[in-house]
Amino acid sequence: MENYPIGLELEEGQKKLLNASIVCGEEEVPVSAGCGRVLAEEIRAVENIPPFSKSPYDGYAFRADDIKNASKNSPVTLEVIEEVAAGHVPQKTVDKGRAVKILTGAALPGGADTIEKFEVTEFTENSVTFFAPVKCGSNVVPSGDDVKCGDIVLEKGKKIDAATCGILAALGYEKVRVFRKPRISLISTGDELIDIGDGLAPGKIRNSSAYTLKALLETWGMDVTLSGIVKDDPGLIAEAVKRECPNADILLTTGGVSVGDYDCILSAMEVLSADVLFWKIKMKPGSAFAASVYNKVPVISLSGNPAAAAVALIMAVKPFLLKSAGQTDFMHEEMKVKLDGGFGKKSMQRRFVPGRLFIKDGEAYMKTVSKHGNGSLSPLAGVDILGEIPAGSPEMPGGTEIKAFKL
Amino acid sequence: MENYPIGLELEEGQKKLLNASIVCGEEEVPVSAGCGRVLAEEIRAVENIPPFSKSPYDGYAFRADDIKNASKNSPVTLEVIEEVAAGHVPQKTVDKGRAVKILTGAALPGGADTIEKFEVTEFTENSVTFFAPVKCGSNVVPSGDDVKCGDIVLEKGKKIDAATCGILAALGYEKVRVFRKPRISLISTGDELIDIGDGLAPGKIRNSSAYTLKALLETWGMDVTLSGIVKDDPGLIAEAVKRECPNADILLTTGGVSVGDYDCILSAMEVLSADVLFWKIKMKPGSAFAASVYNKVPVISLSGNPAAAAVALIMAVKPFLLKSAGQTDFMHEEMKVKLDGGFGKKSMQRRFVPGRLFIKDGEAYMKTVSKHGNGSLSPLAGVDILGEIPAGSPEMPGGTEIKAFKL
Repeated sequence: MENYPIGLELEEGQKKLLNASIVCGEEEVPVSAGCGRVLAEEIRAVENIPPFSKSPYDGYAFRADDIKNASKNSPVTLEVIEEVAAGHVPQKTVDKGRAVKILTGAALPGGADTIEKFEVTEFTENSVTFFAPVKCGSNVVPSGDDVKCGDIVLEKGKKIDAATCGILAALGYEKVRVFRKPRISLISTGDELIDIGDGLAPGKIRNSSAYTLKALLETWGMDVTLSGIVKDDPGLIAEAVKRECPNADILLTTGGVSVGDYDCILSAMEVLSADVLFWKIKMKPGSAFAASVYNKVPVISLSGNPAAAAVALIMAVKPFLLKSAGQTDFMHEEMKVKLDGGFGKKSMQRRFVPGRLFIKDGEAYMKTVSKHGNGSLSPLAGVDILGEIPAGSPEMPGGTEIKAFKL
Repeated sequence: MENYPIGLELEEGQKKLLNASIVCGEEEVPVSAGCGRVLAEEIRAVENIPPFSKSPYDGYAFRADDIKNASKNSPVTLEVIEEVAAGHVPQKTVDKGRAVKILTGAALPGGADTIEKFEVTEFTENSVTFFAPVKCGSNVVPSGDDVKCGDIVLEKGKKIDAATCGILAALGYEKVRVFRKPRISLISTGDELIDIGDGLAPGKIRNSSAYTLKALLETWGMDVTLSGIVKDDPGLIAEAVKRECPNADILLTTGGVSVGDYDCILSAMEVLSADVLFWKIKMKPGSAFAASVYNKVPVISLSGNPAAAAVALIMAVKPFLLKSAGQTDFMHEEMKVKLDGGFGKKSMQRRFVPGRLFIKDGEAYMKTVSKHGNGSLSPLAGVDILGEIPAGSPEMPGGTEIKAFKL
């Protein structure tokens, strides 16, 4: 019994969870529906980009050798034999003494090796006159200038965004292999919880935490099912875990994980003979936390307190979830911000404070948000960042620099 | 002919577009699927939150009057008649000389008016002893402390995020009225364009721009259909606009809108007798731009250059789109950032430079991104912010402060 560590540092907890991360399967999706998914394949260019040498300007293409003696006093005139617009193919080859009018983006015609902007020439419909030589190859964007055939353009494990969709399309991908979204089943536990459509009764609160967590998990690319409310009873919780396991890659529970008469998660794990990885994390809020594995399915147990559940999910669990989703860039991005308004409490324990990032005169600030009003209805109301107050901190005046982490 | 303004300032263009914004219908969605949608109703609390007076601590509830004479030398002991956990309902009324053990979050029992933390008492299972009086009402969180019945909690036109889902759930909403997503049909025009699955041929480029724009529009909450590629022919473009109009709230086109032999959008609008609102915006890139209305449907015409199309969409069109989606907070959020690495070109015209926001030592910087490599494949590769270089700017060294706008 209780052969698991109790009270880990956040970083230890993150690491234990990362070691328990899972690998989901892969599937193919159209690139047009790929935004937000994670690449399950490395994307290589199978051709040069641009695929042909082209002109960056409106101008003329010709052989540099033809105008090597051109000068102000002795200009050289070439015959213009064709005009090529972007998207059109040069029909003629440029021989000695000839030139082709070429528009921005159009392909360099065969025979030509050099391009000059029209502004520095004199021209008629059928001729162009040069007053200076041009170095061979000038103003030609060579084939493969941007991306060479065989180059790795996108790494496996990258999250696809709007730009990535464009890159895949530019490389000729209509479909792309992505990781299947981790299926997360969220079990809410607690005698005090009622469904959100139910009328409030004395001592009862609506299970709103599940809805905040679901939406947050979905923005991280998870596929979330709300699996209902279970009473504070280890047997019933064990039953619910058993029932949900076959349909989920990861189970999340809320409630019943702090020290108290009514805390049942660890008892349920004992009923199930699950492998408890650790219990409790040294941070506020969110210290009530357990991580277990049952039937190879990670079971993450968050506090029944909505703010504690949200903070623990973001700080301790998010890297594990992103890694399980196949992302290679799964760790928190850390930044420094200044406290706007200060933090008026001594903090014995390491603490994460919900806030809002804003930029004022080029400096990054975090405004802490109120626990009243909407803050009491959802711990993430107005929040896009968590600021870290180190253990043993005194009261912090406005302007104090702290570490912060994006949601 | 040409009775429309040409070459507007960005702000004038934004305003003309905002005046042409549309209103889409409404629909009802489950709160669990509401994240990212826009509220079409004002949300009022129909009950107090919390709905009952409750305890913020583990402690004892009693009548303050009973211990008004308590002191260290003359402590007062009350009989403990019940224990109430969170989620459970007090069964008994607290009479004179009695107390109830109450856990965090539990409802204040009838008869009691005051709560004290257990730490400052001495207690057994059946009794609790006080050594000092407590002011009547102390440590009671009153009903409605967070939100009062009738309070407006969420305004119509707010975009629903994870926190909002939790707030709606806490207020008892299972479903919520939202605005229908604007249906956008995107018509790509240009002889040089081929479908993304097609092999490249000299002078041709894949229609990757459409995929970047679609994904970007979807992150803004739009419902986007790619409506194919049309040749540089005013008649064909007019036909495509006519065909797509009945199925779309807004049409977007790319290509054929700058000054040149092959620019056809304005001719197509003439064929359709559409009302052209304006042509061209004074900015780089993205000056090639037209806004029209055909059959009450706004037709927004972007450049065929992918970077110009993306910048114009973000800077000129986004506020119009968000307003058309029902959002009240539709204008760009402006911030100041420092240039990392500087901007090594004089800029005659007002210019918007794609870049990446990062926070270094509490200061906000923008790193400009390369037009090569992935930047050539998608103008938004690595980009999350656009920096503004004012018209007539000299070269700007690193550290120069500029205005910037988030994607």
